[in-house]
Amino acid sequence: MLVLGVDPGSRVTGYGLVQKTGNVMTCIHAGSVSSSGNRPFNERIHRIYQSLVEVIEHYQPEEMAIEDIFVSKNARSALKLGHARGAALIAAAQCGIKIYEYTPLEIKKSVVGYGRATKEQVRSMSQIILNLQKRYGLDTSDALAAAICHLNWTRF
Amino acid sequence: MLVLGVDPGSRVTGYGLVQKTGNVMTCIHAGSVSSSGNRPFNERIHRIYQSLVEVIEHYQPEEMAIEDIFVSKNARSALKLGHARGAALIAAAQCGIKIYEYTPLEIKKSVVGYGRATKEQVRSMSQIILNLQKRYGLDTSDALAAAICHLNWTRF
Repeated sequence: MLVLGVDPGSRVTGYGLVQKTGNVMTCIHAGSVSSSGNRPFNERIHRIYQSLVEVIEHYQPEEMAIEDIFVSKNARSALKLGHARGAALIAAAQCGIKIYEYTPLEIKKSVVGYGRATKEQVRSMSQIILNLQKRYGLDTSDALAAAICHLNWTRF
Repeated sequence: MLVLGVDPGSRVTGYGLVQKTGNVMTCIHAGSVSSSGNRPFNERIHRIYQSLVEVIEHYQPEEMAIEDIFVSKNARSALKLGHARGAALIAAAQCGIKIYEYTPLEIKKSVVGYGRATKEQVRSMSQIILNLQKRYGLDTSDALAAAICHLNWTRF
């Protein structure tokens, strides 16, 4: 099964495609959409949507895994994050792929075995699980972790 | 010129199409997308996107006016509102119509002449300006007010 993991953010949205064959998980492709810069906020949000639609259409994942966020530093950053996360959800829905949401605690427990793991620990474990040579940015590794978490859950 | 005004909300998203001919503004169509209920949150967000795309494709407005929100009661409601507002922005961008954002203060000043007007006052003035017989819900009248505000601004 091929799963797209997404870590939405108003500045950087990470994504990663993880394939599971038997008990082996492999990263097929991973990257991030940078939406910072001088362009208007609504163009940045549209770019997240467009980029994820392109990734989905190209790689044809069967399902999407995304972090279920219910806390944020403040209302202003939560509002911005909501736009980015909405863009990811609409991209998946428009492409007809099913969406699975996991709390940060579930993802960290599933990947590192410890719910309060740091982002760096999540990256290190994701690299080991996927046997990655490349060290991705933290947004991308968080996206890969969401995909790994989903593939771990669907095992049962 | 035909303008689509949108008032996004995670439960109800209002929209209204206002046509300006000479100095006369007319409401062509208005309504709301209810996205509450038992369906998963991501389906509700996708429904906002789909409904607005349908409205845009059917009525072919030239521009969209939407409230520029930077404050919210709390982070949780801001995150949800962000998803809904993102859905509206992506719908407009996908349909290739330009987006104009106005602060609540600008909209209220433009429609009622007073920046601290209540939603009910905004509705009453929108009804008078558009010569409406029908009394719309507050989400829909807020959307109409955004369109009126934009048409007032573009006059100059």
